[in-house]
Amino acid sequence: MRDVAIIGVGMTKWGELWEKSLRTIFTETALLAIADAGVDKIDSMVVGCMSSGLFVGQEHLSSLLADYLGRTPVAAARVESACSSGGLALRQGFIEVASGMSDVVLVGGVEKMTDVTGCEATYALGTAADQEYEGYHGLTFPGLYAMMAVAHMHRYGTTREQLALVAVKNHDNGSRNPLAQFPFKITVEGVLNSVLVADPLRILDCSPITDGAAAVVLCPADMARKMKKPVVRITGSGQATDTIALASRKDLTWLESTHIAAQKALAMAGRKVDEIDLFEVHDCFTIAEIMVTEALGLVEKGRGGRAVEEGLTARGGRFPVNPSGGLKAKGHPVGATGVAQAIEVVKQLRGEAGDRQVKGARRGLTQNMGGTGGSSLVHVFEAE
Amino acid sequence: MRDVAIIGVGMTKWGELWEKSLRTIFTETALLAIADAGVDKIDSMVVGCMSSGLFVGQEHLSSLLADYLGRTPVAAARVESACSSGGLALRQGFIEVASGMSDVVLVGGVEKMTDVTGCEATYALGTAADQEYEGYHGLTFPGLYAMMAVAHMHRYGTTREQLALVAVKNHDNGSRNPLAQFPFKITVEGVLNSVLVADPLRILDCSPITDGAAAVVLCPADMARKMKKPVVRITGSGQATDTIALASRKDLTWLESTHIAAQKALAMAGRKVDEIDLFEVHDCFTIAEIMVTEALGLVEKGRGGRAVEEGLTARGGRFPVNPSGGLKAKGHPVGATGVAQAIEVVKQLRGEAGDRQVKGARRGLTQNMGGTGGSSLVHVFEAE
Repeated sequence: MRDVAIIGVGMTKWGELWEKSLRTIFTETALLAIADAGVDKIDSMVVGCMSSGLFVGQEHLSSLLADYLGRTPVAAARVESACSSGGLALRQGFIEVASGMSDVVLVGGVEKMTDVTGCEATYALGTAADQEYEGYHGLTFPGLYAMMAVAHMHRYGTTREQLALVAVKNHDNGSRNPLAQFPFKITVEGVLNSVLVADPLRILDCSPITDGAAAVVLCPADMARKMKKPVVRITGSGQATDTIALASRKDLTWLESTHIAAQKALAMAGRKVDEIDLFEVHDCFTIAEIMVTEALGLVEKGRGGRAVEEGLTARGGRFPVNPSGGLKAKGHPVGATGVAQAIEVVKQLRGEAGDRQVKGARRGLTQNMGGTGGSSLVHVFEAE
Repeated sequence: MRDVAIIGVGMTKWGELWEKSLRTIFTETALLAIADAGVDKIDSMVVGCMSSGLFVGQEHLSSLLADYLGRTPVAAARVESACSSGGLALRQGFIEVASGMSDVVLVGGVEKMTDVTGCEATYALGTAADQEYEGYHGLTFPGLYAMMAVAHMHRYGTTREQLALVAVKNHDNGSRNPLAQFPFKITVEGVLNSVLVADPLRILDCSPITDGAAAVVLCPADMARKMKKPVVRITGSGQATDTIALASRKDLTWLESTHIAAQKALAMAGRKVDEIDLFEVHDCFTIAEIMVTEALGLVEKGRGGRAVEEGLTARGGRFPVNPSGGLKAKGHPVGATGVAQAIEVVKQLRGEAGDRQVKGARRGLTQNMGGTGGSSLVHVFEAE
């Protein structure tokens, strides 16, 4: 397999983009990524999107997006793994370049979520859970993650304030990210007084509904070096699944799919987790980030709450987590999130992250998951 | 890149399977394919499905299907390219094995289409067209293909009877396929007197709404040889896109994406089309098969109608097309079709196709397309 590099990134401001359609927001970011890469030709496209069928009544994104990008007859694929669709797109693009099948692959992610009502969006997102055993009983994702939070609090003594601190940290980071949907700071008091969604989770524990896209260009590392581009290699890719229904899990407080995907990605990269300088992880709810830090091995089981309290995961801490602002502040257009995580890591490793730069960052890791952890994708990136 | 073989196939009878859910029909075929392959372990799964979100309110098939197959934490992906989702799954699995990323990959396709009303199914299928420029004006697929048929009849003199003969041929083949949804013969008169859907297309020109799944197991060809399995290699894979909206095409009577995908697949295999012994192609409507035979180069432009009339594409003809019965008789669970095409080719190349066997078949080709040809996947298979 060939070494693979990311040579271009593209992203526009995320939010409620009512004046733009799915095809527009995808195409804008794809053009930025292609321009950043400085390539004329792309051999293939892979786009992650969770549910354009339910959100905008449009499938067949392979043809639609190749067409609107003006790139037909390019080979194009759409991949889906719920909220980890972007991470899956990155993995498929990585495999395609590594295999020698294609040299230059555009990897994108997109979701247009605000063209439907809140109830419709909640239903569409709920299709990432087991429809027959969870959805039909009325469970939606705030409820599922609330159960995980209650279990974690009960077993490990994780506190309501520790959950809030995840959101406060990520908004502090996001206040330095001009592309974030909510680029402002919040307080612990603000989180604790925000409206209750599913006890113990309040609205400021939840990532928002977002329109957005993100794109990167991959090529063989040798080609990137010849082009004299800053070379950020993808050195590890790990993917794993877990039972889709929470009720089937052995342990509500443990993200097995993330744990396994991380082990695979780190093994491929030949790295240990403490050699990584920054982490972009899937904080769809505050409890998720706490559980992810444990599953990645940044802290012991049950210590994720204390880790954020002690500043371990702050931008200047030992393991900076979500310097971009995370899903919480940056927004969470579900199919785009995994690709945007990679963009933040590339910007950090290039030293282009402005006043949210993690000093001296040379290695980064992304963790993107679907549902309550039914699927996880982990990637490791290294600057040369 | 490594040589890739198909070592296991699995399919159950297609039809209106009201007593089974999506997860059930997928799992049944996957278990058959794994048993046929004789493997214990699979490294990865890729599943093609067009619109489980709209048909059964379920996304996140990667986790769902790995779970119900009892294979978590296996890496799993769902891919979508409208009605060519199955072909896309085959290509992604092929690349994954060829790259060395995985050794044993389960490739499946599935669609559960009859749990909704006919109107809802038509809407869901319509999301393969351009929603903003085709769907919102009321166009659905029978209408889009009817326009292509009218253009082809006008330019080339293709007749109403020639269209009917495609359906008659495919039902004749399908009458010998016990897994087909409609395993019986029909007549030209029957087609011409069937209810009009979108002039000139009648109901017996249209492939049906179907529940079904199909699965194959891929591995490196070297591994297949060591296992002493009959080795059918995938020697070529081609993929291309075209404009999603019919109005943007230069020529309504020509399937450019199929033409390019076929050229790529044949070039990879080092074959010319006249070296291929049988073809499984995407006859979603009778006019589609006529246009596909032209785009593949089996006949000159405009001669597809005469080809079927002259028996060129019959089971005993020079270029047997759709010995399985095609989408028309076998059924068309949209995400599964591309995988089922590969299964028919494997059965034919193994000499296991019963009384629809194409004698002495050593090489086969599949062509699977999305929408009105906005995406096409072509694969070449060769027996050793």
